[in-house]
Amino acid sequence: MTQRTGLKIAVIGGGSSYTPEIVEGFIRNYDQMPIRELWLVDIEQGKHKLDIVGNLAKRMVEESGLPIEVHLTLDRRQAIEGADFVSTQMRVGLLEARKKDEHIPITYGVIGQETTGPGGMFKALRTVPIILDICRDIEELAPNAWMLNFTNPAGIVTEAVAKYSRVRSIGLCNSPINVQKFLAAQYEVSEKDVLPEFVGINHLHWVTSCQVKGEEKLPEILSGGMAYTAKNVPTVGWDADFLKSLGGIPTYYLKYFYMTDYMLNEMKEAMEKNGTRADVVSRVEEELFELYKDPNLREKPKQLEQRGGAYYSEAAVNLMNSIYNDRKDIQTLNVANGNIYDFLPADASIEVNCVVTAQGPIALPPRNVPEHVKGLMHAVKVYEQLTIEAAITGDRGIALQALVHHPLVPSIEVAKKLLDEMLEANREYLPNFFRE
Amino acid sequence: MTQRTGLKIAVIGGGSSYTPEIVEGFIRNYDQMPIRELWLVDIEQGKHKLDIVGNLAKRMVEESGLPIEVHLTLDRRQAIEGADFVSTQMRVGLLEARKKDEHIPITYGVIGQETTGPGGMFKALRTVPIILDICRDIEELAPNAWMLNFTNPAGIVTEAVAKYSRVRSIGLCNSPINVQKFLAAQYEVSEKDVLPEFVGINHLHWVTSCQVKGEEKLPEILSGGMAYTAKNVPTVGWDADFLKSLGGIPTYYLKYFYMTDYMLNEMKEAMEKNGTRADVVSRVEEELFELYKDPNLREKPKQLEQRGGAYYSEAAVNLMNSIYNDRKDIQTLNVANGNIYDFLPADASIEVNCVVTAQGPIALPPRNVPEHVKGLMHAVKVYEQLTIEAAITGDRGIALQALVHHPLVPSIEVAKKLLDEMLEANREYLPNFFRE
Amino acid sequence: MTQRTGLKIAVIGGGSSYTPEIVEGFIRNYDQMPIRELWLVDIEQGKHKLDIVGNLAKRMVEESGLPIEVHLTLDRRQAIEGADFVSTQMRVGLLEARKKDEHIPITYGVIGQETTGPGGMFKALRTVPIILDICRDIEELAPNAWMLNFTNPAGIVTEAVAKYSRVRSIGLCNSPINVQKFLAAQYEVSEKDVLPEFVGINHLHWVTSCQVKGEEKLPEILSGGMAYTAKNVPTVGWDADFLKSLGGIPTYYLKYFYMTDYMLNEMKEAMEKNGTRADVVSRVEEELFELYKDPNLREKPKQLEQRGGAYYSEAAVNLMNSIYNDRKDIQTLNVANGNIYDFLPADASIEVNCVVTAQGPIALPPRNVPEHVKGLMHAVKVYEQLTIEAAITGDRGIALQALVHHPLVPSIEVAKKLLDEMLEANREYLPNFFRE
Amino acid sequence: MTQRTGLKIAVIGGGSSYTPEIVEGFIRNYDQMPIRELWLVDIEQGKHKLDIVGNLAKRMVEESGLPIEVHLTLDRRQAIEGADFVSTQMRVGLLEARKKDEHIPITYGVIGQETTGPGGMFKALRTVPIILDICRDIEELAPNAWMLNFTNPAGIVTEAVAKYSRVRSIGLCNSPINVQKFLAAQYEVSEKDVLPEFVGINHLHWVTSCQVKGEEKLPEILSGGMAYTAKNVPTVGWDADFLKSLGGIPTYYLKYFYMTDYMLNEMKEAMEKNGTRADVVSRVEEELFELYKDPNLREKPKQLEQRGGAYYSEAAVNLMNSIYNDRKDIQTLNVANGNIYDFLPADASIEVNCVVTAQGPIALPPRNVPEHVKGLMHAVKVYEQLTIEAAITGDRGIALQALVHHPLVPSIEVAKKLLDEMLEANREYLPNFFRE
Repeated sequence: MTQRTGLKIAVIGGGSSYTPEIVEGFIRNYDQMPIRELWLVDIEQGKHKLDIVGNLAKRMVEESGLPIEVHLTLDRRQAIEGADFVSTQMRVGLLEARKKDEHIPITYGVIGQETTGPGGMFKALRTVPIILDICRDIEELAPNAWMLNFTNPAGIVTEAVAKYSRVRSIGLCNSPINVQKFLAAQYEVSEKDVLPEFVGINHLHWVTSCQVKGEEKLPEILSGGMAYTAKNVPTVGWDADFLKSLGGIPTYYLKYFYMTDYMLNEMKEAMEKNGTRADVVSRVEEELFELYKDPNLREKPKQLEQRGGAYYSEAAVNLMNSIYNDRKDIQTLNVANGNIYDFLPADASIEVNCVVTAQGPIALPPRNVPEHVKGLMHAVKVYEQLTIEAAITGDRGIALQALVHHPLVPSIEVAKKLLDEMLEANREYLPNFFRE
Repeated sequence: MTQRTGLKIAVIGGGSSYTPEIVEGFIRNYDQMPIRELWLVDIEQGKHKLDIVGNLAKRMVEESGLPIEVHLTLDRRQAIEGADFVSTQMRVGLLEARKKDEHIPITYGVIGQETTGPGGMFKALRTVPIILDICRDIEELAPNAWMLNFTNPAGIVTEAVAKYSRVRSIGLCNSPINVQKFLAAQYEVSEKDVLPEFVGINHLHWVTSCQVKGEEKLPEILSGGMAYTAKNVPTVGWDADFLKSLGGIPTYYLKYFYMTDYMLNEMKEAMEKNGTRADVVSRVEEELFELYKDPNLREKPKQLEQRGGAYYSEAAVNLMNSIYNDRKDIQTLNVANGNIYDFLPADASIEVNCVVTAQGPIALPPRNVPEHVKGLMHAVKVYEQLTIEAAITGDRGIALQALVHHPLVPSIEVAKKLLDEMLEANREYLPNFFRE
Repeated sequence: MTQRTGLKIAVIGGGSSYTPEIVEGFIRNYDQMPIRELWLVDIEQGKHKLDIVGNLAKRMVEESGLPIEVHLTLDRRQAIEGADFVSTQMRVGLLEARKKDEHIPITYGVIGQETTGPGGMFKALRTVPIILDICRDIEELAPNAWMLNFTNPAGIVTEAVAKYSRVRSIGLCNSPINVQKFLAAQYEVSEKDVLPEFVGINHLHWVTSCQVKGEEKLPEILSGGMAYTAKNVPTVGWDADFLKSLGGIPTYYLKYFYMTDYMLNEMKEAMEKNGTRADVVSRVEEELFELYKDPNLREKPKQLEQRGGAYYSEAAVNLMNSIYNDRKDIQTLNVANGNIYDFLPADASIEVNCVVTAQGPIALPPRNVPEHVKGLMHAVKVYEQLTIEAAITGDRGIALQALVHHPLVPSIEVAKKLLDEMLEANREYLPNFFRE
Repeated sequence: MTQRTGLKIAVIGGGSSYTPEIVEGFIRNYDQMPIRELWLVDIEQGKHKLDIVGNLAKRMVEESGLPIEVHLTLDRRQAIEGADFVSTQMRVGLLEARKKDEHIPITYGVIGQETTGPGGMFKALRTVPIILDICRDIEELAPNAWMLNFTNPAGIVTEAVAKYSRVRSIGLCNSPINVQKFLAAQYEVSEKDVLPEFVGINHLHWVTSCQVKGEEKLPEILSGGMAYTAKNVPTVGWDADFLKSLGGIPTYYLKYFYMTDYMLNEMKEAMEKNGTRADVVSRVEEELFELYKDPNLREKPKQLEQRGGAYYSEAAVNLMNSIYNDRKDIQTLNVANGNIYDFLPADASIEVNCVVTAQGPIALPPRNVPEHVKGLMHAVKVYEQLTIEAAITGDRGIALQALVHHPLVPSIEVAKKLLDEMLEANREYLPNFFRE
């Protein structure tokens, strides 16, 4: 790591509306983590947004008075070359594709969601080949870089990178940091004094222990029927009897599995009113970019916080900071399973507490893994593995198996129809499936 | 084993309509497996049927001219004392309870089936405590006996026995022997020349290899869209694309998982026409017992074959024979997992090919375990484990977790309602759940 | 934990010459870890030494001006009742027994050492039953206490406690903290900036990674032929070629395995000159206790540092501090294996880096476990398991298997002779083996 | 398999003195396993012996009147092309090399043996590259062939083939069949009625169960102090107490580990009298070839039985027969571990009972694996793995680690000297280690 001269950071998908948040994070942490060059890189179709948000980034840095160079580019290789950290936050197919991911499944009575179910599968099928292209560049141009992967479905993408590249990569989600902040607020302690233990995989985790100032508070939390929700998803309560016998706090995304009909109905109703979540996000983003254009704006606008994805950038900056400074603190990350769960392959990505050292994260085996949840974890992991294999090979049979074995897909018949329609709708982004 | 003086065999649930089949099996195999005493034992409510079928058994033996003593009794301990084999084929709650198992779930839009889903769970909750009572007797009165368990859900019951008793027990299902016979017939070879390899657990298996005279025929079978069905379940075809990419022949019971809506509709329609399967069986049994009463009947009547459960007794006699004679042949049985599947606990029951020696079966690790199916296997096994724990403890919370985590139960909400209604309906047979 | 009123700490074997060190540690760390009561407990034979060292302890506390009550007692139960931490540092059979452990094996040409080989085995056989007696008291009188076990062989003793009691216990050795301090000194950084990774079990570990300020320094260290040695063992160099291809720094104790003849000769020569290590320690202790008697001595005397066992008390105080204050720092401890090494049982004790929380240590899976060393680790662990079983049962056959399968015992013949002679020599302390 | 036209069999190392035995086996089993072509292939230096023994083979076949073509050739590729079975029984470096394997270690006070210890290691280093060359030919010219590997050290060689080629290969040793025959003789039953269960790896196994006509006879055997010995090794008794507490019958080769000094002394004495075993074999072989030359000899001479290696050919013919005829009988073979031993890698070769089908052997998990022996098994397997890696890479560091971690090598110092001298002595056959 080039400690003496400051860090080079490349943000793939730098034209994202989130960018001001991560820029703010870099500015705030500059004393611990001096950045020399920040490269925001995007694709041709994203140039317009990259210019707007990139110029805001430049004004923010200028305002801070710090010697950070901000570069805007469409040349990914130039951005990556010699980088210390590469962060990915991209959306292959843009919001148009997300709209299909959310919409098509619902027409078959199946959860239509960005990361869970068939929607998440197609997001993965579009994304994995592109991420691996990026990895080829990193292997060549920045072999010592750490890749921080925010791109959803983060678990699948991280696992694909681990299996098919030599890049040192870590998957990140804002869900765990939200749990931590929520608990710290509830108990009025600092975040350092809260240690929730996460069991599971990305967007499918259970918090099965909760130390607050060293005391186990889980039974108290469960008996109160308390659960955490992220800001960008509707708040719905959990059944109290269920929580108690479960012995863990399920993540919001588990509602898609445990309360499927309810969630499906909510989705349908919301869609009728406001369109899918992609439509909502689309409108929010338009407004944000209008704000970003203002040449007098020299800081992150408050409105960005309503965009969802709270604390994404804090999670990212924390992680870079701990690697850079060998902080050995505990963060919840997506990394390879190793021996942690003896029922999953060693190369499966899991979401787990890690001690973060300069040589990367070391996973901490959870102390309490309820038998109850192993089957569901395993079933979803099988779907994830098949999805990666399908993305790499373009094999329709494997894609069919992935869908059929997803717990949210009700039958072979539905899986076949869904697969055909979604493949066709994503044809442009799935060359592997449409080779001669 | 008391080789010199012949075997003592106890059949728990001896008043079953199946009994003539097993008696026929004993007679046919007498030269290899000489039986001295056959004890048919039943409970007070089954006395009437025990008398009818028991007398038929006596006439059959008489006709054979063999020196087998047939005893009818309501005294289980007398029947068990000193037995070499104890076979269990009982139905706690009789067909009335089965009717509820099949009927109540359907009213919630859930598969209602004797062994799969909530129906199977309640059959297990009723049966496990009784089976363990029987085991206490065997431990005391026939510690060297082998228990052959046919009682459904055979996988769960066998696992419960292994976990909570010292009885040497093996679970048996007629499904694998039917596959074998079906393949032998298709390829016009003897059964010895067919070696299907079973992956999975009871009523949830996939045949992932099929050697016929030493050649692997699975790809041929899968590409023909061929599948086997047992006689007592409706014949429905599998999707050809699905089978091919699956890489295995799924058991009929997997239709409940892979074709849920279709099966549910079939059930509903059949129920409207003929009542549940319990109603049908009830009528068939009445007719059979009418036949059995005929004092001139001295052999198994042909009509029994339409009862379903084909080759059950052949499976049982084969197993006893191989243990008695140390035949070391291959049979498909329900035994403890050991290290076979590294993602399941060592004490989980699995359905697997075994070499049967005088010291019991030794499981043969399947050579080809598709990744696809591991998640579903694991999820159902988790439900099974929770069911056993619920049966032992009478803990409603654990029972709720079992239901919620069953892949066929759609939500916490449905699980709670189902649980309440089915517990109430089975109150008489579930003292563990209704203690003061 | 009784945070408001200060801690109660019981030191079993409080009459040890080490006690002034731990007292000094408590005094130095009082602001972070306020101690209300310190109970030094010993057995009748140790009363004289307890009085001497206990009075020194009282003078040290007085000098510090801190409100710590120091209690001296022969009543173990009183000392344990309500304790927050129980530390054990005892020697069943006193130095006399150690002398035999060291001496008898050498007469058969086998390493005679306090913790490694037959000597360590007999120390374990004497100690395990006593430790489990203590655990019975803790279970009853201080069920929430943490037991810190320094008593050698620490790995075996800790594993026995985990298997046969419900006490929360952690095994501790000063060897890892010495490595850490050595490396920090070599690289002139603070100890926090050094992260050596330990693979193995107590007194049989390899350091297979060495991060200094986040950089991997192991290759550099190995190519320099550098190795660490504890102060209480002779310093001998390792072969440079061997170290390089080994890919790890072996602990000093591994010389008994890798350089057996050399070590045996050293032992013999030293014994001829100075008697066994027990004799040497005996003389050192006599001198120390002479010093301790001095009523003007009000601090730990310098001479204690030459006693060996450097930093034992620092290790202990660190551990208590991190549990008490939920520090979540990394310490190297002896804890249950769990899934860390997939070739060892889950309940095997291993020596491993842990994050120490208020709920105890969480083991960090080592990142680099050389295949080379797995066999030796497994072989010694097998010996350890058999030793525990022998200690519990008093079964000579199991004890024989333990000795025969120890890598340092050359043959069945030697094992049998050694076993007979050592059992006889320890008869007084091994009632399990000499029951009627 | 070319069933209609008979089998083609290639014997690599066909000039061996054992060849008449295997030829006799083929003749005796012709009705079950019709052989069309038998190719005996050897290297240039072996041409003389190949001619002698090959002509005897031809006379034997002629005498039998069977239509088997016997071909003698130095062209390995011609022999392999289209073969159904390839059997390897070769000795790279001939008896001269064996002599060094046996002699050099003894000069350092280490067991000098053909398959165990440093001797076995060097045999492996010489053999692995050659075997893999043969595998390249088989992959190209007979991809469906089964390779039966008798070449010692059979476990290492078989594992190397499995790791570094796609050839279907099985390792064979005559030790298990000797156990079976010995037990059958002792109990006066047929071999089919004996089922010994083997735990371990090649030349390092324990028989931990012994069913005779279905009854467990192990305790009886162990309490009698009975043990089996192969004919080609000195008969020495085991200690009765040791056997009883061990819970298994150790193979003769385990004497090198459990009675090291005794065996070393025996070796030294025998060497002084008769030279090493290589010298003895050399004389026996000379005499045998004298006999073979006799043009009137048309059958296997009795004297061959004194050569050692009893029943090698019976083991080989049994295995081919069961594969060819899909016999599904139980044989003890060296195959990949899979999940059988959870403490060994899946690709480790183990010696284990298998059901032999036309698609190859399926390993039967042993029911009783004593904890005692796991460490030794693991330690020797680690040495084997390192040896394979050393053979492939020619890395001296890895070879040093293999030697140091072999339980029979006492120290780094001895290992280094041994390594240097043995590498030099084998320079001609170890090009990997002597590249520029």
